[in-house]
Amino acid sequence: MDDSKETGRVEAFSDGVFAVAITLLVLNIQPPSLSTPQLLVDSALSDYLRHQLPMLLAFVTSFATIGIMWINHHRLFLHIKRTDNTLLVLNLLLLLMIVFIPYPTALLAQQFAVYPSGNLAAKVYCGTDVIMAVCFNLLWHYASFRNRLLSKDADPLAVRAISRQYAFGPILYLISFGLAWVNVPASIILTFMLALFFAVPPRSLRLLP
Amino acid sequence: MDDSKETGRVEAFSDGVFAVAITLLVLNIQPPSLSTPQLLVDSALSDYLRHQLPMLLAFVTSFATIGIMWINHHRLFLHIKRTDNTLLVLNLLLLLMIVFIPYPTALLAQQFAVYPSGNLAAKVYCGTDVIMAVCFNLLWHYASFRNRLLSKDADPLAVRAISRQYAFGPILYLISFGLAWVNVPASIILTFMLALFFAVPPRSLRLLP
Amino acid sequence: MDDSKETGRVEAFSDGVFAVAITLLVLNIQPPSLSTPQLLVDSALSDYLRHQLPMLLAFVTSFATIGIMWINHHRLFLHIKRTDNTLLVLNLLLLLMIVFIPYPTALLAQQFAVYPSGNLAAKVYCGTDVIMAVCFNLLWHYASFRNRLLSKDADPLAVRAISRQYAFGPILYLISFGLAWVNVPASIILTFMLALFFAVPPRSLRLLP
Amino acid sequence: MDDSKETGRVEAFSDGVFAVAITLLVLNIQPPSLSTPQLLVDSALSDYLRHQLPMLLAFVTSFATIGIMWINHHRLFLHIKRTDNTLLVLNLLLLLMIVFIPYPTALLAQQFAVYPSGNLAAKVYCGTDVIMAVCFNLLWHYASFRNRLLSKDADPLAVRAISRQYAFGPILYLISFGLAWVNVPASIILTFMLALFFAVPPRSLRLLP
Repeated sequence: MDDSKETGRVEAFSDGVFAVAITLLVLNIQPPSLSTPQLLVDSALSDYLRHQLPMLLAFVTSFATIGIMWINHHRLFLHIKRTDNTLLVLNLLLLLMIVFIPYPTALLAQQFAVYPSGNLAAKVYCGTDVIMAVCFNLLWHYASFRNRLLSKDADPLAVRAISRQYAFGPILYLISFGLAWVNVPASIILTFMLALFFAVPPRSLRLLP
Repeated sequence: MDDSKETGRVEAFSDGVFAVAITLLVLNIQPPSLSTPQLLVDSALSDYLRHQLPMLLAFVTSFATIGIMWINHHRLFLHIKRTDNTLLVLNLLLLLMIVFIPYPTALLAQQFAVYPSGNLAAKVYCGTDVIMAVCFNLLWHYASFRNRLLSKDADPLAVRAISRQYAFGPILYLISFGLAWVNVPASIILTFMLALFFAVPPRSLRLLP
Repeated sequence: MDDSKETGRVEAFSDGVFAVAITLLVLNIQPPSLSTPQLLVDSALSDYLRHQLPMLLAFVTSFATIGIMWINHHRLFLHIKRTDNTLLVLNLLLLLMIVFIPYPTALLAQQFAVYPSGNLAAKVYCGTDVIMAVCFNLLWHYASFRNRLLSKDADPLAVRAISRQYAFGPILYLISFGLAWVNVPASIILTFMLALFFAVPPRSLRLLP
Repeated sequence: MDDSKETGRVEAFSDGVFAVAITLLVLNIQPPSLSTPQLLVDSALSDYLRHQLPMLLAFVTSFATIGIMWINHHRLFLHIKRTDNTLLVLNLLLLLMIVFIPYPTALLAQQFAVYPSGNLAAKVYCGTDVIMAVCFNLLWHYASFRNRLLSKDADPLAVRAISRQYAFGPILYLISFGLAWVNVPASIILTFMLALFFAVPPRSLRLLP
């Protein structure tokens, strides 16, 4: 088996999980059914769509979150070229969080729409993000430690840039989690900014001296 | 990493999203459940199936729409050979619209079946198509601008043919969107013709002199 | 683009559709929910599982049907090596039938369980199979006509063996469809035998002289 | 067709089925809907989440089970390099069990949460595991018998190590099935230990002298 092929199936399986998880999100926004035809008159439909706005926002947010996680997974596996049993298990752990993420997102959107003063959903949401950040770090550190599973020609600067960017993840998400106990909107805004931070490749952040 | 492989995972992930989105459509047409056995007598079942006809039409329409979008995505990535972070984000934007499309289609089918005089669903449907056409243009123009991410041996005539065909997209879909405010059936017919227009490869349209 | 790669994405997308369609089937069999806890006592659960038997049979039948269709699709694309726009459209048509098949199967299982004397569901089921057989023939004849899209080194005997086996498809399924009007169990048994007939590779059928 | 490619599509299709099956699991845990807003107050939501704990445990268990099955499937296909019709059918049989597994898992979680004294769900669950273990053995023994479908350079020690580990599967799962008739918790604990046993590659078990 040549060097370039070993991660093929892990990537294919992971791509499948990401693709299904990101597409299932749409099941949370449903048009009014034919059994309630009165909701289909223009004026009632307009109200119906307006009430669905928080679910639509949760859909776009979950989609962006899982999409950014996929970009990160893709970025890591540009460098990871070999697999072993531990990597497969750590990757499964990460995919478990990916598959789970629509749940706390819908929870957050619904509680925020109805009882903006509650903060339980925000705690669950931010707690999930902390675990996700830890999973990404576990996977990356296991693979990159002494170049264990990296390509022989992996760029050491790029590898270190990713390690540095990821090191901030758990800490920053923990701050966001702490904020959820005192100020939900601030916590949500910080979480969104963190998502954008991880959407950008580490080099362009000039984290390296 | 050799030139021919770089888009492998973007295509695999996109294929997954297209495949899930196109298959989930069938969840909108359900047989009568065992909890309403009286609906399973031939005569009642016949009525049941007849009433499901608008949903069946929406299913076939959504399937054709997403299928044609997949053919277009496939066509673009025959030429696109490299990726960068911006392309990944633009591709995610396009996939967001793909995943969303069953929603306005079901909305349109249901309103048209019950209140053909309403036009809110048609506006939402055509509006979605406008954004979809813009997303396709963004992706293609970003990738093809000065051959940024195209294969070195990309055929310049084929590239220009796609650019020309796509340039018509947003304008034509905007006309269809405008029509939705005055004449819903005309708007729907134009939208279907546009879908067929984008199902045909640009060269065979002889858009080139 | 080298000869061996051209069908890669059509196969990946088709594999995705087959995989999602075959897995979604399980959504039709649900355990009793926590909101009806009395159904979870051993004796009640035993009744519940017994009543779910027709749905379980429909699940296994649909799974086998889609699985055999996948084996056939796989077999055809061992020979098909090039794609064009018409092939993509014919493949989409075939996938439309694949995605649709769980619907008539569930319909058949439910009507047969409750009103075995009805035959509307059997007509819908066998009618779907006729169209499916026609779609397979369209795809294969388009690709294999004068070796249009086949591999240059495609074995002419294997190609002719597939063509012969497939030629029987629409006729045999039409007979099954006709039987559905007079004798539902006979029609179902014939359909199952046809599925097995198409699960076996044509050469081992010794259809060639 | 070169030796290394023949199993490409079987693996891609199987990866798709595993990916969809593992992701669909999340549909079993739903947040309270907007139609019951009173459940979204912090105190009620806290109760709601606590009551969902058995479903959450079933979700994690099913995810781990399917994930470990995927690791095993991946491990076998590192050695399997050729396919034939029988292998495709045996693989479909295995995938049927994979797709089915969320059903007995949810059944077990629900009965255990409400009527821990019942054992019907545990019997169904362990019975499914026995069939799954048999399917894995069928696939592996068919492929590895006289190296029928293995890579020419397959390591005979690794092949024998897998065969030995798998030989224990059906027997051990049968013991767990027997335990379900007398002591449900003991049966569940043994099943989980077996899952971990199959998550570990056979060589590191030092099963070889």
